[in-house]
Amino acid sequence: MLDKTTRINYLFDFYQALLTPKQRNYMEMYYLEDYSLGEISELSEVSRQAVYDNIKRTEQMLESYEKKLHLYDKFQSRIVLLDKIEHDLEKSAPTTDVISMLNQLKEID
Amino acid sequence: MLDKTTRINYLFDFYQALLTPKQRNYMEMYYLEDYSLGEISELSEVSRQAVYDNIKRTEQMLESYEKKLHLYDKFQSRIVLLDKIEHDLEKSAPTTDVISMLNQLKEID
Repeated sequence: MLDKTTRINYLFDFYQALLTPKQRNYMEMYYLEDYSLGEISELSEVSRQAVYDNIKRTEQMLESYEKKLHLYDKFQSRIVLLDKIEHDLEKSAPTTDVISMLNQLKEID
Repeated sequence: MLDKTTRINYLFDFYQALLTPKQRNYMEMYYLEDYSLGEISELSEVSRQAVYDNIKRTEQMLESYEKKLHLYDKFQSRIVLLDKIEHDLEKSAPTTDVISMLNQLKEID
């Protein structure tokens, strides 16, 4: 089971383009740069409660996008399949081209 | 070059979950079931112009989602790579497992 922070980080990766700059900013400070709610509140000159509410609402939006588009879910399914394919191909000495293309596939999230 | 209808059909596939039921409904009638604007207008009891405006706005929304999330673009890149991998593997007699997994990958859009 993934912890919640890891999941939110992934969802943020997939859906951040759909957020407002303010939402993105709070999420980055809180989840990526590890600022506390109090610190974000001071730096942004809004109440701690407003920052908290914004972050919670954004998390709900990310979950709601995932429920509709399943990008994280599909990404995970692809990684499982790509790992299995790589593993199966190891026996048959695949060309470096094939290995490189499999790696490129992993990078298209 | 893809014609516009094909592109819109793909974008609709990828992003329809983000549309309202009304938007989805008009788009389905117009693009999938090939109703004319006049027929949709009669069936929906709204003006032809309202139907037209709604469909045009929805098309813009689909393009705007694609600009942000690139799902169709990424899908195309994956298909190109998967086809190349399949082609390369043909020489080395891949297992049916590998072929089946490559096909599964194609189905995860």
